[in-house]
Amino acid sequence: MSLMYSSVRQFAKMVRQIDAWLEKAAAHAKTKSFDSAVLLQSRLAPDQYPLVRQVQSACDSAKLGVARLAGKEAPKHPDTEQTLDELRARIKSCAEYLDTIKEADLAGAETRHVTLPWLEGKYILGSDYLVEMALPNFYFHVAHTYAILRHNGIDLGKRDYIGMMTTHDGK
Amino acid sequence: MSLMYSSVRQFAKMVRQIDAWLEKAAAHAKTKSFDSAVLLQSRLAPDQYPLVRQVQSACDSAKLGVARLAGKEAPKHPDTEQTLDELRARIKSCAEYLDTIKEADLAGAETRHVTLPWLEGKYILGSDYLVEMALPNFYFHVAHTYAILRHNGIDLGKRDYIGMMTTHDGK
Repeated sequence: MSLMYSSVRQFAKMVRQIDAWLEKAAAHAKTKSFDSAVLLQSRLAPDQYPLVRQVQSACDSAKLGVARLAGKEAPKHPDTEQTLDELRARIKSCAEYLDTIKEADLAGAETRHVTLPWLEGKYILGSDYLVEMALPNFYFHVAHTYAILRHNGIDLGKRDYIGMMTTHDGK
Repeated sequence: MSLMYSSVRQFAKMVRQIDAWLEKAAAHAKTKSFDSAVLLQSRLAPDQYPLVRQVQSACDSAKLGVARLAGKEAPKHPDTEQTLDELRARIKSCAEYLDTIKEADLAGAETRHVTLPWLEGKYILGSDYLVEMALPNFYFHVAHTYAILRHNGIDLGKRDYIGMMTTHDGK
């Protein structure tokens, strides 16, 4: 599997990790008898995105990153989620889109010229786009989602973040 | 440049981004007349690492990740930093180590069997280790460093996080 394609699989894995965190958050809110929608508006600084927009942005940076690398049009999502369940549906839709991308869709992705709205008159090579923009931006929103949940007392640990790895028996 | 090697260059770039954030944090502390060492003990949840350990962990996940992929021994750092200046020296040392890794050092890194202390009797392929562990773990600590600084009022934005990208004129 190419590093380009395994990165796409990793985007899909990580958005599903977020879903598991939100499931824990829903259970926590139920135990503590508070409206889980409160969490969606929680943020770490007044001029940072709240949880809902961190999750939307994680989904978007994954789907747009992959679509740009594959030269495809990503599905649109209108950012209207107001509950944890709606946010989890957004994640599901994003993960299912990522699952449609096959290794063959990424043939030539490393040398593709990627243009971005804010790079007027310039392009970035697909390989640089993945490493310098898509991955750091994706993990920015994933980690902020995690941090907001931890800041609000949701019981998550590094294993919830990293998830299962592809290991093999032997040395 | 292989995706493996450009990932190593990206580790070096991002730890230098952190250094620039800490420089802004030092200036902020001076303007507000507080001891910048207070920031080093700031955290987002009582059972999360404080800033100092987030930065140490970002440096370690970069240096250990790259060393494991290159089959080398990483330099040791004793985790004794107590000031912003000491933390910035740690970052400088880490970045300079990352700069010593050449593309040739990573020949065969994708298929290398990486063993980790907590993977008893198992190994993970270098390519999977990079994508599933080294990158997400590195960005976890980078983004938490950023989030703690933002939570404390340091004036940072997405451009400070992403930094310069390798763009080219044309389409």
